[in-house]
Amino acid sequence: MQRVTESFDRQGFMKSIGAVLETVQAGVVTISCRAGQHLTQQHGLIHGGVIASLADVACGYAALSAMPEGKEVLTVEFKVNFLKPANTERVLAVAKVIQSGRTLTVCEATVFDATQTVAIARMTATMMAVDSERKSG
Amino acid sequence: MQRVTESFDRQGFMKSIGAVLETVQAGVVTISCRAGQHLTQQHGLIHGGVIASLADVACGYAALSAMPEGKEVLTVEFKVNFLKPANTERVLAVAKVIQSGRTLTVCEATVFDATQTVAIARMTATMMAVDSERKSG
Amino acid sequence: MQRVTESFDRQGFMKSIGAVLETVQAGVVTISCRAGQHLTQQHGLIHGGVIASLADVACGYAALSAMPEGKEVLTVEFKVNFLKPANTERVLAVAKVIQSGRTLTVCEATVFDATQTVAIARMTATMMAVDSERKSG
Amino acid sequence: MQRVTESFDRQGFMKSIGAVLETVQAGVVTISCRAGQHLTQQHGLIHGGVIASLADVACGYAALSAMPEGKEVLTVEFKVNFLKPANTERVLAVAKVIQSGRTLTVCEATVFDATQTVAIARMTATMMAVDSERKSG
Repeated sequence: MQRVTESFDRQGFMKSIGAVLETVQAGVVTISCRAGQHLTQQHGLIHGGVIASLADVACGYAALSAMPEGKEVLTVEFKVNFLKPANTERVLAVAKVIQSGRTLTVCEATVFDATQTVAIARMTATMMAVDSERKSG
Repeated sequence: MQRVTESFDRQGFMKSIGAVLETVQAGVVTISCRAGQHLTQQHGLIHGGVIASLADVACGYAALSAMPEGKEVLTVEFKVNFLKPANTERVLAVAKVIQSGRTLTVCEATVFDATQTVAIARMTATMMAVDSERKSG
Repeated sequence: MQRVTESFDRQGFMKSIGAVLETVQAGVVTISCRAGQHLTQQHGLIHGGVIASLADVACGYAALSAMPEGKEVLTVEFKVNFLKPANTERVLAVAKVIQSGRTLTVCEATVFDATQTVAIARMTATMMAVDSERKSG
Repeated sequence: MQRVTESFDRQGFMKSIGAVLETVQAGVVTISCRAGQHLTQQHGLIHGGVIASLADVACGYAALSAMPEGKEVLTVEFKVNFLKPANTERVLAVAKVIQSGRTLTVCEATVFDATQTVAIARMTATMMAVDSERKSG
């Protein structure tokens, strides 16, 4: 799972929002992030864009963790439903692979609040395997 | 359109990524953002989460601009397809209302590169009007 | 759950594809459908549109089953990922409510093959409660 | 565009709902369908599943029309927002390619009412090119 960690560490955006790669297993990845003034929407809660970003990255690395060596991952598309306001000190995105193909991988993620009992958002995402030398993203 | 500007200015996350509210018309909003190390994915391009966030906010304010006074806007859900790598110095999210109801508003956004000729991403979003005193988001 | 059964029985389209309302519990609905020549796509398998329709209806009635009396349900939007070809004699759509609000209900559905072990498709849907006298759909 | 016509004609489901392939151009396909008792939802209007099916097929063939010979098309995923009740005698799905890649094609469709001025639904879909000998769907 080293390649997931290395790739995550190269993401300037994950660093700037303070995201932490919590766990990486085959097909399951979790990422957390603390609330803060730099992440708020207009009412002071964690921004939906931050929540979607965490879920997207968790889905991408869940997919990558299930791909052969020499592959990288691109997000084809995702859809997110916001279920509850992110009125919490910390969010945790939990992503898992639900279908793994040669080219495409489908993942789902739930973003939980700090208690890990309240689902704030739900994502379904399609990820694509590309050869590592293709440096697009 | 003052309420759109005021609401945008309260978003700490938009400030921290350097997003600029470019134009606000009835039902059409544009937001720009410059590339930078704090916004990168693993290959140094603008992160998909940033692109989705800009499109989400543009859709939200396009919806709000078409709502009666005394309302605020919540994102119910959005879906985004990534069309091209964001290999550009600046992105521009252009959102417009495509269906306006009493409770729900449907918007679409395209995120363009710096030339404004290449579409990087495409979003469809459902926004909900809530009374201003309800402080969730 | 009588109102779910009555509403389902009024759906000419469900009748014409041979869909069967299998179970209705609070927040969980299952609908089945047998394969047949009238439901095929170009390779003789069950059409993706049929699969999406079954999942949509199951989500709608899962939502309705959790709404107060005097309400009807409209589909705001849904998104479906196709996971496997529907190479099976019978499909079963299993839908459940994942978030229930006063106006909006979010549901998820999985469509299984005849063995009920293979997931063919996965849907997330947003449903809206409207007063029964509003006869739109 | 013969391969589009031939593939459409093999779809038993399109025949059973009475769908008509109206026009096929490179990257743009239109399909119509008349209302009828066999296509209704619970209030007698055209079923959302029918509308989604027409848009899905139109997107699929718009994508196929832009692919090299020897390819067939699979729907990876689609998302549809329902904008207005389908209170009309006839619907027309108009689909076009918005991004064409070697493996994936992104399409959008609008489903119009009989006047062709009212948008009933809006879809974004991801289509995948597969070699013709792969007979899944």
